[in-house]
Amino acid sequence: MSSFTVRARDGAARRGTLRLAHGVVETPIFMPVGTAATVKGLTPAEVEALGAQIILSNTYHLWMRPGREPIEACGGLHRFMHWERPILTDSGGFQVFSLQGRRKLDDDGVLFQSHIDGSRHRFTPEGIVNFQEALGVDIAMALDVCVKLPAKRHDLERSVELTAAWARRCKEAWTRREATALFGIVQGGLDRDLRARSAEALVALDLPGYAIGGLSVGETRPEMFALARYTASLLPEGRPRYLMGVGTVVDIILAIEAGIDMFDCVYPTRCGRNARAITRSGELNLRMARYKLDTAPIDAHCTCYVCRNFTRAYLAHLFRAGEMLGAILLSYHNLAVLLELTAQARAAIERGAWAAWRDEALHTFGDEQAAATVAAPGIAERCAEHARP
Amino acid sequence: MSSFTVRARDGAARRGTLRLAHGVVETPIFMPVGTAATVKGLTPAEVEALGAQIILSNTYHLWMRPGREPIEACGGLHRFMHWERPILTDSGGFQVFSLQGRRKLDDDGVLFQSHIDGSRHRFTPEGIVNFQEALGVDIAMALDVCVKLPAKRHDLERSVELTAAWARRCKEAWTRREATALFGIVQGGLDRDLRARSAEALVALDLPGYAIGGLSVGETRPEMFALARYTASLLPEGRPRYLMGVGTVVDIILAIEAGIDMFDCVYPTRCGRNARAITRSGELNLRMARYKLDTAPIDAHCTCYVCRNFTRAYLAHLFRAGEMLGAILLSYHNLAVLLELTAQARAAIERGAWAAWRDEALHTFGDEQAAATVAAPGIAERCAEHARP
Repeated sequence: MSSFTVRARDGAARRGTLRLAHGVVETPIFMPVGTAATVKGLTPAEVEALGAQIILSNTYHLWMRPGREPIEACGGLHRFMHWERPILTDSGGFQVFSLQGRRKLDDDGVLFQSHIDGSRHRFTPEGIVNFQEALGVDIAMALDVCVKLPAKRHDLERSVELTAAWARRCKEAWTRREATALFGIVQGGLDRDLRARSAEALVALDLPGYAIGGLSVGETRPEMFALARYTASLLPEGRPRYLMGVGTVVDIILAIEAGIDMFDCVYPTRCGRNARAITRSGELNLRMARYKLDTAPIDAHCTCYVCRNFTRAYLAHLFRAGEMLGAILLSYHNLAVLLELTAQARAAIERGAWAAWRDEALHTFGDEQAAATVAAPGIAERCAEHARP
Repeated sequence: MSSFTVRARDGAARRGTLRLAHGVVETPIFMPVGTAATVKGLTPAEVEALGAQIILSNTYHLWMRPGREPIEACGGLHRFMHWERPILTDSGGFQVFSLQGRRKLDDDGVLFQSHIDGSRHRFTPEGIVNFQEALGVDIAMALDVCVKLPAKRHDLERSVELTAAWARRCKEAWTRREATALFGIVQGGLDRDLRARSAEALVALDLPGYAIGGLSVGETRPEMFALARYTASLLPEGRPRYLMGVGTVVDIILAIEAGIDMFDCVYPTRCGRNARAITRSGELNLRMARYKLDTAPIDAHCTCYVCRNFTRAYLAHLFRAGEMLGAILLSYHNLAVLLELTAQARAAIERGAWAAWRDEALHTFGDEQAAATVAAPGIAERCAEHARP
């Protein structure tokens, strides 16, 4: 059985400990994404060396490929991918509802065609919980109904209602409660009333944790954080809160400010494969000519394996030569930055120095636009204002 | 100054120790190939963990990209790629002479166009030695003239003469003798007289080591090993012998049998990127449907990181899903096999058990064709017969 303890608070920011079947996760935490049972480009030994406490994988992708059978034959997802620490799997709701024109929703579930081979599949709340339990993951997400924004009020309402009904069915289908914690997903778009209705229905189910879905889908940063903060305020204090699909360095800092505990995003590894380095001087494109002779490390303030041992000139060469090692090393560094960021955030909250750390980190990492967003009256204050319904 | 000691002999097979500026290399040894200053798909930490004692890089490729300047700015090739053990660079002769129709040979050197952008470059013996010394490599190869087989006698003769003349110029241009050992390359195609002429001219230069070039270019396996054994017999006992571009497991065993000490080949990493696993049960193609549910390791007799922790089913999934980790893990395993193979060969020669070990290894690893090649009268015997000029 999972448990969560908030050990310290500083403003809305929380410092927590989440105990799961495969280990303890200290929050706030960034979860590297391993969509297809691999954090792209890295061995599990490297992901462990990075200090990742929990990684994310994806039900939709694993269902399609390799399917349940090989994973079960290997003894579950942990053994299949040789990752011994906790795993969270997304329910696949987001992916299925992204299949425009290739999926059909009814009250019972959703019928869709695979993006790989066009084969037909059906997701139901029960089937998705059953699949995730068979994988043996530490956190299973309930099947939710995602709506693309902007959306009609009617569609948003139906998404909120079905998501609640499906979460109830997920809870009923949830049997391996010692091994797997079930999280619900709050929907409702950018509408505060619907967010409140969705949160209320899910909280009534008394689940081990709650996610905020349907954000980070194109809305502005102030909109996103106003909603995240508002939604977080509707969730129980004693349960972990997970903002799905977030995000950049600045997004993560703002999400912690909003009272969120867990984050995931493909951003660091996707950037890593595209020569984009996350640094304390902003984002660098290592394909630019200026780095060809640059003997500095990617980030002079970073102590990761890559920054201790390699130069920008070497990384620039690897990307130009189309060598895999470029993507490998840069994915490693980018993940190191986000994991170090959340480690520092935890320490700052613990010592009651959150606001000062936040402002300095936003200043250090922020691109100019982000800095402007955060400047007076400040995103935090604006979020707080918006949060009064 | 490099030094080489033959510590044990068993038949023609030799067990030696080669001391170089960046460390000691125990021979016979397989050298992983890092053409563009990276062993494809692996971090230097992984290559080190594999127990690689020396790696190979390529003058032609480094000259083209990234060029001399970034490598020198980073303090040489070792620092550039963060590899602290010995490095050998091929001279680039093989690559330049592969540029059919885009290169022009004269007595002084060779003019050619880059395969990357068509830019014009000129290799001379002096320029190539100078470049390799600037990289700070432990072993520099002299610039040789390669001829595509089958070739006219006249072309082979010219290749042998020019290769000898260029080796003399390389030796004259060779200044950093403490840091970099210069190896000559014996040419001569499949013609014993020309091989003898080439070896004689090079041996007269008293170089720290000798390579056999112009083999493994399409001739049959018996032809190759007859020539390798013959050429090896013409080289001084007290100098290391390097058979360029070899090879598969069976090729390496036969080359050791022929009295060769060093080998390199892209075979293990190229196979690794193409789902082909080198195992003690032959080569496996992990894309085949039969491995989808196979919970065995790649090779049950292998103790490498990959075989200890991952199944064929997982590797099969990674290749199907197009995930980089498939190539990474399989390159790692394939290199582990070749490095373990040469470690076992060293041990067998030391304890005077070479012939028994060789026969068992050929039986274990050999595909059926290779086994047939080696069967009575036996490649070793046939090589020995052919070797009498």
